[in-house]
Parts: sequence; structure tokens; C-alpha cells
Amino acid sequence: MISVGVVGATGYTGVELLRLLSAHKSLDIKVATSNSENGKAITEVFPSLRSHIDLEFVEHDSDQLDSCDLVFFATPHATAMHYVPKLLAQGCKIIDLSADFRIKSPEIWEHWYQEKHSCPELLETAVYGLPELNREQIRTANLIANPGCYPTAITLALLPAIKNGLIDIGDIIVDAKSGLSGAGRKAALATQFSEVSESFKAYSVSGHRHLPEMTQTLNHAQQEEGVNLTFVPHLVPMNRGILATVYVKPIDRTVEMHKLYTEFYSKEKFVDVMPEGSHPDTASVRSTNLCRIAIHSGASESRSIVILSVIDNLVKGAAGQAIQNMNLMFGLEEDMGLVSPGLIP
Amino acid sequence: MISVGVVGATGYTGVELLRLLSAHKSLDIKVATSNSENGKAITEVFPSLRSHIDLEFVEHDSDQLDSCDLVFFATPHATAMHYVPKLLAQGCKIIDLSADFRIKSPEIWEHWYQEKHSCPELLETAVYGLPELNREQIRTANLIANPGCYPTAITLALLPAIKNGLIDIGDIIVDAKSGLSGAGRKAALATQFSEVSESFKAYSVSGHRHLPEMTQTLNHAQQEEGVNLTFVPHLVPMNRGILATVYVKPIDRTVEMHKLYTEFYSKEKFVDVMPEGSHPDTASVRSTNLCRIAIHSGASESRSIVILSVIDNLVKGAAGQAIQNMNLMFGLEEDMGLVSPGLIP
Amino acid sequence: MISVGVVGATGYTGVELLRLLSAHKSLDIKVATSNSENGKAITEVFPSLRSHIDLEFVEHDSDQLDSCDLVFFATPHATAMHYVPKLLAQGCKIIDLSADFRIKSPEIWEHWYQEKHSCPELLETAVYGLPELNREQIRTANLIANPGCYPTAITLALLPAIKNGLIDIGDIIVDAKSGLSGAGRKAALATQFSEVSESFKAYSVSGHRHLPEMTQTLNHAQQEEGVNLTFVPHLVPMNRGILATVYVKPIDRTVEMHKLYTEFYSKEKFVDVMPEGSHPDTASVRSTNLCRIAIHSGASESRSIVILSVIDNLVKGAAGQAIQNMNLMFGLEEDMGLVSPGLIP
Amino acid sequence: MISVGVVGATGYTGVELLRLLSAHKSLDIKVATSNSENGKAITEVFPSLRSHIDLEFVEHDSDQLDSCDLVFFATPHATAMHYVPKLLAQGCKIIDLSADFRIKSPEIWEHWYQEKHSCPELLETAVYGLPELNREQIRTANLIANPGCYPTAITLALLPAIKNGLIDIGDIIVDAKSGLSGAGRKAALATQFSEVSESFKAYSVSGHRHLPEMTQTLNHAQQEEGVNLTFVPHLVPMNRGILATVYVKPIDRTVEMHKLYTEFYSKEKFVDVMPEGSHPDTASVRSTNLCRIAIHSGASESRSIVILSVIDNLVKGAAGQAIQNMNLMFGLEEDMGLVSPGLIP
Repeated sequence: MISVGVVGATGYTGVELLRLLSAHKSLDIKVATSNSENGKAITEVFPSLRSHIDLEFVEHDSDQLDSCDLVFFATPHATAMHYVPKLLAQGCKIIDLSADFRIKSPEIWEHWYQEKHSCPELLETAVYGLPELNREQIRTANLIANPGCYPTAITLALLPAIKNGLIDIGDIIVDAKSGLSGAGRKAALATQFSEVSESFKAYSVSGHRHLPEMTQTLNHAQQEEGVNLTFVPHLVPMNRGILATVYVKPIDRTVEMHKLYTEFYSKEKFVDVMPEGSHPDTASVRSTNLCRIAIHSGASESRSIVILSVIDNLVKGAAGQAIQNMNLMFGLEEDMGLVSPGLIP
Repeated sequence: MISVGVVGATGYTGVELLRLLSAHKSLDIKVATSNSENGKAITEVFPSLRSHIDLEFVEHDSDQLDSCDLVFFATPHATAMHYVPKLLAQGCKIIDLSADFRIKSPEIWEHWYQEKHSCPELLETAVYGLPELNREQIRTANLIANPGCYPTAITLALLPAIKNGLIDIGDIIVDAKSGLSGAGRKAALATQFSEVSESFKAYSVSGHRHLPEMTQTLNHAQQEEGVNLTFVPHLVPMNRGILATVYVKPIDRTVEMHKLYTEFYSKEKFVDVMPEGSHPDTASVRSTNLCRIAIHSGASESRSIVILSVIDNLVKGAAGQAIQNMNLMFGLEEDMGLVSPGLIP
Repeated sequence: MISVGVVGATGYTGVELLRLLSAHKSLDIKVATSNSENGKAITEVFPSLRSHIDLEFVEHDSDQLDSCDLVFFATPHATAMHYVPKLLAQGCKIIDLSADFRIKSPEIWEHWYQEKHSCPELLETAVYGLPELNREQIRTANLIANPGCYPTAITLALLPAIKNGLIDIGDIIVDAKSGLSGAGRKAALATQFSEVSESFKAYSVSGHRHLPEMTQTLNHAQQEEGVNLTFVPHLVPMNRGILATVYVKPIDRTVEMHKLYTEFYSKEKFVDVMPEGSHPDTASVRSTNLCRIAIHSGASESRSIVILSVIDNLVKGAAGQAIQNMNLMFGLEEDMGLVSPGLIP
Repeated sequence: MISVGVVGATGYTGVELLRLLSAHKSLDIKVATSNSENGKAITEVFPSLRSHIDLEFVEHDSDQLDSCDLVFFATPHATAMHYVPKLLAQGCKIIDLSADFRIKSPEIWEHWYQEKHSCPELLETAVYGLPELNREQIRTANLIANPGCYPTAITLALLPAIKNGLIDIGDIIVDAKSGLSGAGRKAALATQFSEVSESFKAYSVSGHRHLPEMTQTLNHAQQEEGVNLTFVPHLVPMNRGILATVYVKPIDRTVEMHKLYTEFYSKEKFVDVMPEGSHPDTASVRSTNLCRIAIHSGASESRSIVILSVIDNLVKGAAGQAIQNMNLMFGLEEDMGLVSPGLIP
């Protein structure tokens, strides 16, 4: 049995991790931390876990973490970086679901996150935990930077096209939409029910932190610079789900994009290329680790090709992908604990 | 392996059955029927089941049902009764999730359902599938009448009090609230998003079909007539969940209701009596087979005692309870396939 | 033109007041205060008011309030009481939408609101602003205690029955449900979209501050003590609306309750008694100052009579009723500024 | 007083028309038709109109329409065209809120609507009722083709840029999102609450009927062919509201788009250009006839400029714009009956 710890277990990503981990057969949840709920039973904060987890929250700096085989960080950014070096030194493996190790360049990270990075030397060794891109490196990694939610949906939507040089990488439009759980579990006026219910809006049009993460991954995937995304995220009055609508310009309109995508992902358990012309809805992936992708090749010569990509932001976009990474790191079946069908409605 | 069939698999109860059955280790789904979607792949109608079920819908009268060990009916009322006698004769066990076999009296059934019952002789032999009440009979039954969603939440809220003679059975108020999935999956103006979203209302105040079902069960539980419920259901703009707020008058205010409930259900895996004074929300049981109950003993001598009871109407109120019954009928662990923690948010 | 001020104009009640006041023909909004948004343009906080109001928020203790004919307080409780005596002394009339002047007994007020009342001498002179009950006193009042949202819906549902001695006042069950705007506009975890959406729960079962307010009004209406309510409020995942489901026991079942209610309210512009057996939904009163009431006289001798009452908690339950009171106080048509049909969907 | 009729008054557009018309000071609603609800009181179908309209629905071919000064059609497409020629001949003016007269070319109309047009000779004389584009023609028109909801939001977002030749008209991406009321008020499985709530999806990616309408208007606005839109609509789980996110490529990056838009619309009462970099939400225009537009000029040389445009699809996108057109046709103030501030939350 793998002994695991979860740091920052009171956010939506944290509780989703606890839900999925508590149903996983090959591990024990040894410790869960929360500085704000320290001392409380987990089930007092999350009654949905009653009978599943019998632990009390401890503080982030608990030395119970030291003896874990694996520690997940589900903390806000600029937190994990203060704990990770010590835990790595003690032999713990780390999966960081926050942004602390996603960007290779400390300068770019510091520009977007407005903090000094406390362990920039780890940025190069951290492996970006998108299994469909970096599976082999993940197997042997000690420190995983688990991808952001938008970057997961969008990178998977673009990888086959970019790796195969099919599209104009200088002109990609990404119009993305996310449910409210993506905004985190915290007291904030902007995400009160009555502020966002029955409303829809774009946000961070001038620049979102997930943009440099995607650009880095996609540049790397095609082995040179040049990827240029116009990225606009929006807030949808629902709990879970991301839909990315991606507009690309094909270099050669005779290439059958749908067929190429189907082949590219044919061995992937968690990427489902739908029949051409499908309209996947976010509900169809709710509670699952799946990314569903559909290609619309364009009604006419001059129109853009549209790629639709849906995920559950808390599963494939966070906790599920973290477990997929854990399975790879510990030599387990990649889909262990991640096979339940989606919950509808 | 148990071979099972599902008749009427395109409603919300049907697809929830398919979701739970496809994750159950001891059975094969052999056939799923739908007169309306006959011939289509199940996954075309329900993309959430892609990679989980590889079957096409057939018609209700398919003879593939004959060789099933167990057939679930998730049909509208007055449908199952036309198929059940033949299937029983062929040795199939039946769990009917509709109302056809819930009421013992054909007259009462016909009054509320406005149809002639086609096999009234089976009404007495059918076992009411509430395991917390009828566990032993369920183990040996061939025909189970799976309880309605409201009756499950409300009966479990009242059983300990009524069986122990603690309350005035002639004066019980039940104010119940249900999410929209309880209204079924069908084209109807009244349940269009824009008709019900951002709104709340009572319905069927003059009489709801679940009233005679509850009255029958509760009278039977205390072995005499006299239970009198005023029952008002309401529609909540959410998908899943029922909350019943039950107002009762204690006969003896010195009895510790909370303690008695805790003991009454101490061995039940799917009834969770919360700490006294709790306010369980429906989200805490979403996707689970649990009923969570909380007792509020009343602020003063003259006030009613309030019992709160929440379930997921599609799980403990329908498909999950059906599987709990199946497990009992086939000698499996009662909670097999029903142990995943709830999905929040 | 009446010059009015609004103190605490950044809550949902405050902005609803601004919306309704800015469309009212006989007044000028002279000042709106907010300690938190002091100095900002109102339209920066509420873009929906662009082109309707051209003011900046000032602080609560602004002396611009002194010269107003009327000041509305839309502040949290225990705020208005610190400003009202001075403003009254300067000749301003006051409509307090908070709870500070609703309870006649300082002891009861202090018990429920857990604060020392700073001007208990005003409690007796304040007029409870329910026009259907106290119209004549309101016309000449200088200080109005505008009723709470639940008390408005529930008191109107019970007044005809209680004033006419038709029901057992010692045994009234009130199961009430409110949309989220009733919880106020403030950063709080408990009312985050993802905490309350797709969920339903009861709250404050052990005691809610609106209970003593309703009990006081109903006791007063029947001129003696003895009203006993069991009151359970619930939270509905929608923005606006309250439905109260009221269960009463008739003293004489031959009395035609529906007819009596219809007559009782026949001259009221803002109480609409629906046809017998109706199921009013909250959407039908959204954005209006109406209370819609329906009577269900009970399916049998032994069942309770059910009274359904719906309001928009921000209009008839708060800002609209305040304007109705203002109209009375200033000799205007009672429905001035309050006649627009409801917004559906 | 203008006497008006409304044909097809039971959809969301129809009831919104009735709501707005019943509050308009210069007209009488003389007749409202519905083939399905023929004979019922309007207030039985729409309790929100109780005390505002005292009429019964009559059939579409009622000759009461003949004596109206103005008839609105709020019918599904391919209905109005069968009634309009006769009514025009009798001297009625017509505002058709359906699509029957929006497209100038009968061939294009028939291709997209899959019907034979019954009066193609009227297509040229019909005036496209977007006042910000065609105000003078509207004043003297007898037949108005009221624009579609998406075309209203999107055309207003693009007009200043296209009329001034600022952008590459061959490469425009429009990612649009609409609430559910846009799907109409009818029994349909696809728009049931539980099918769409807690979900998000694109639809009609391969081609939507509003595309030829927008292309025609925008080509006409810049007086030549060449406008090429890639248009993807999405469904948002909310009732009202459209947000269009429009991606354009500037021809000259030194042009100050925001300033130009502000000037272009400076005299328009119903187009509100927000401060640069704003993120207007749909809630800020709910229940109003406003279109709010914000410009984001792009974070870098290579990124697209993003134009955000929000409307209430039932008001500026349908009934409100129809009344704006009516006001122009009858020489009234253009904003008469359309000045109430928006309803939040």
C-alpha cells in the first residue's frame, strides 16, 4: 500500500482528491492538512466523506507528511514551493496540483504569479504531468507539476494538430468556458451564487495565468517557438466542467483532421475522440477523468476549423489527472481508481 | 455472474441503473430495452456510457429478456405489469422500479393510477423493497416492488418513531422537496429549463400518488391503521436530491429521539443519523445510496419535532436501492457496487 | 419632489431600492452611502444602473443625509439604530429595512440579535410597515420598521385566518423556502455558487430571528397571546423568491377559507388570492411587489389546510414594500412605481 | 392610442412583448393570438400578467387583427408569411419577430429554412429593424423584419469596425453564448432542466440560421461582399442573456478602437460602450433593451482584438427591439416603455 498525504485538502480540488483516493484500492490516506480547519474531523467539513475517511485535519507543516510515499499539494500557488524541497529530500514523491512547478522559466513564473519563487532550481527537474504527452518521464519522476484545468483541455485539443504541423500555430483562438468550481472554495463576493447564477461573462481577457503554461507546452511539443494563442476564459453558472472551443487555420485542407485525431489518441484511455461533427457537452464527462474531443472541419474553404474539447475541471483537470500520474509513478494500472462512468444528470 | 436486463433504460432511473450496474463486479448487462430508441447504440443516447456499455437498445418485448436471471423495470407505471407474469413464469427474478406492485390493494392502486391492474394476483406476493424494513423477505423474493423516491426518504424518517410508538400518528406533516430528475426524462413544457429554473413551487397539494404508498407502509409498520400524513411535494431547481422536512408531535417529550434513531439504524450501512441539530443538505448524498437523517427535538414544549431526511432520488430513491435489493436477492454483500463517496460539488 | 437617501446601498436590498427608486417619478435620490465602496461611482459597482444614477457612494455618517425628506436604511442589523435618532431629530422620516425597530421588546430583540439596543425608547413609536395590517398608522409615521421577508409572506398568509379566529393558533407549521439573495450580498463561503447550487437544505431549525417578529405581529393581530409557530426556513438554489407552505388546523371545517381570503384582500393591490387549488410559483411574482396566496382546504377531515404564499423577497419582502410605505407616508398613490408586470422567465 | 395585436403570444418572445406592451403608455393591446391556447385567459397561461391584461387568446386568423394599427408576429418561422400580405393590404403595419422577412434572397432563405417562401415579393420592401443601422427607413416602413437575437448582439459589436474599414472582414471569429429562453417555450427533451442544467455545449457548429442574416447585414453595411464569419453558438444554463465574444484582426493597430466605438454609438440610447477592458456580464443587461460592448485591444501585436457584446436576448434581441421599432414607426420617443433599469440579481 502506498501511503499518501494531501496538503490543502479543503478546496474543491482537495476534497475531490480525497473522494477519488478514498475509493482507490492501493493506497492509504495517512494525513490531510488544512491550516484553516486544523483539528476538525474531515467529515465535519465534508459530510459527503462520512464513513469513508476517519482523520482530522492537521497543519501543513505536520511531520506526518515526512513518512508518506507520496504527497499531493492542492494548495493555492506559492505555497507548495515552501514545503516541497524538504519533502523531496526525505524521499517523498510529490504531485503538485498548484502552479508552482509548471513554468520552466522563473522569470515568467514570477511575472505571472507576482511572487519570488523560493526553489527555482527545481523547475527544470519537475515533470509536467500530462500523461498523453510525457508518460515515460512521469513514470520515473519525483516531482510532478500537475497541469492546470484549462491547459489540460486545450493542450489535448491542439496536440495532434501541432505535433503533425497541420495548422497555423501563429493564429489560434481559444474561447474557453469553465464552471464555478474552477474559481476555488473560498469566501469571495465575485463567486457568490447571486452574483454569478443567471449570468455569463468573460474574465481576464487581458491575460490569464494559464496562457504561458499552454504556450510553453505547445512550443515544446513542436520543438520550436511560435505558438500564439488568443485565449479568453469565461465563467459558466454550473459547478463542474470546461468546454474549450478552439479555432484553427489548417495549412492543408485535404488532411482529414478527424481521422488523424482518432489515430493519435487511439491508445489513450482518457481521451475520447467523438464521431466527426459531434457536440460533446460537459455533463458527459462529469465526475470522470475523460477528455472528449470533437472536430468540425469547417463549412467552407475560408472558415476556421473548430475543435471542441470538454473535461471535468476537477477530475481530468486536477485530481483525476493527479491520480493518473500517481498510478504511472508507482507502476499501477494507469486507470486504477478512475474507471467509473460519468454521473448524469 | 448474474445476467441482468433493464427494461425502459432511457429515463433517468434507467440510465442511473446502467451507470451503477456497469460498475458492479458480479453481473453482466445482457439487454437494455427502449421502445423509443430501439436499434440505437446506448452510447449514442448516453455518451457518458461510452466505453462502459456496448449494446444496442431492443424493444421491451425482446425475448432476450427471458434468459436473464434478473430483469429491472424502469418504465412508466402500468407497463411492467404487462410483462412481469410471463418473465416470472420463465424463472426470471424481477425488480420493478415503477409503481405497479407497490400497493397491496388493487382498488387503491386503480384509484390513484387510473388504470385497470392487469395482474392483481401478484400484488400480495410482491415484496416492498425497502431493505431497512423488509430485509429478510427481500432475500427470498422473486418480485420486488422498489419503493418510490419520496416514500424512501419519508418512511426512513418516520420508521423508528412509529415502530416505537413515540409520536401522534394521526398528525404528521411532511413537506417534501425534489429535484427535477424526479419528474422523468421526457419532453414536457412544465419541466423545461426556463419554466422551472429560478423558480420554486408546490405541486399536487390535493393528492400525490406516493401518499397511499407511504400510508400503507407506515400503517403496516405499526401493525394497525391510523397513520395520517399531510403531504406536500415541491419542485427544486436542481437535478438530484430530495429533502423531506417532517413535523411530528411526540407523545412523551422525555424520550431522546436522536439517541433512539441512532440505535435503530446503527447496523444500517445506508442510513446515516447525523449529530443532533444537523442540517444535512442534498448535495452530501448526491450519487450515493445513503439516507441522511437529522433530528431537531424542538425549541419548546409546544413546538413540533422536526426530522430532516435527505436522499439522492435516483440512487437510494430508485436505482441504488434496486441494486441493494438485487444484492440481497442474490446473496451478495448488501453494499456491493454502492460504496463510492458522494460527488461534491 | 421628495429627496431621499439610501444608507447601505451595496447589498441586494440596497441595489433593489436604487432600481425601484430611480424609476419612481416623485423623488430624487440625493445620496447613497456605503462604508465599503465609499468614493466609487454607484455604476462602477452596479453597471446595471448606468445612465440611471449619477452619484458616488459616500460614508454612512455623511451629513448630506440630514437634508433628505426620507432616509432608507438597508444596512445589516444593529447599524440603523446608531443613526436614526439624530436623523429623526433633524426632521427626516425613516424607513428601516433592517431588523432594528421590528421588535417591541428590547429584551426579546437583544436576545435574538445579541446586541445591546442603542435607542430602545424608539421601539414603541416605530410602526411595523406592513400596509395590509397598519396602513393608517403608516401614513403618519416618522419611523417605519419595514418587515422581514419571511414575515411578510407568512403574516399575509395567516392574517385572514387569525383575525377571524378560524384556526388553532397554537399549532401552526410554517415550512418556508427562500432564494439566495435573502442571504445578502457579501463574501461568505456558505453561499458560494458551488456550495449551494444543485443542493437544498434547511437552516436555523432551532430558531430563526424572524420567528419572534411573526409571533409578535400575529399575537397583536388577534389581540391576545397564544400564537405558536413551528418555523423551518430552507435555502433554494435560485436568486429571488420565497414560498411559504403553511399548515393550519381549522376550527370549523365548514368555513370557506378561500372565499374569506378573497374578500379579506379584495381591496389590496398587492395581495392576489389565486383560484382555489392553485400552485403559485415564485417566478410569477419575480420583480413585483405582489404576494400571491392560494388555499388548499385539505383532502380529508383529518388533514391540515395548506396555505401557499409567494413573494419576491427583494420587492414585497424588502425594497418594494419600503416604497409602498413611502408612498403612504407622503400621500402618493400606494402603488406608484410598483406596477410593472413580473419578469418571466 | 395605437391599437396593437400580438400573433403567437405564448412563446417567451410573445409573453415578453405582452409584459413590455402592457406597461407602454401609448397603446392598447387589442388582441393576442395562440392556436394552442385559443380560448384561455392570457393570465391563466401567464399568472405574472394577472391584473395587467384582461384578454383571452384567439386564433391566429382572427379578424380582430384587421383593425389593429400594428401587428407583431412572435410566431415560429414560416408562419407570419402566410398572414402578412393580407394584413398589409388592410393597412396594418407589421413587425415580424420571426425570420420570415430577414433575408433578402428567397433562395438563401429557402435553403436555410427548408420551406418555400409564400410571399418573396415582400422581401425587398421589408426593412431590417436594427435602429442603429436603419433608423430612417424604419420610421416610414410598413413591414419590419425584427433582427434575430444573435445577429443583434454580433452586428452591433462589429458595425463600427466594419463601417470604418478597421478589420480584416475575411477572418472574423464569433463565439456566442445564449441562455435557454432563446430555444423557445415548447416541450422538448433537449431543453429539459435536467438535460441542460449543470452542462455547457456548443451546437449547430456546422451552420446556424443566423449566419446568413449577419453576413447579409455586414456585407451591406460596408457596401460590398467579403464578410466571412466563423460562428459557433453555445447554450448556457441560464434563462436570459447572450454574450458574443468576437475576435477580429485589425488592419492598423494604431487606431484606437475603443474611442472610435464610443464615438460611433455616442448618440445611441441602447448601446453602451463600457470603459476599455471591461468584462460586461449578461446580468447587467437583464430585462433591459441595452447592448453593452467592451473592447480589449489585445495583449500583443499578434493577438486578436476581442470585442465583448451582451444583450438580453428577449429584450434587445427580440421584444424590446420590436418596441423600439414601433416607437420609431409611430413617431414616439424611441425609448418609450424601455427605460427601466435592469433587474439584478
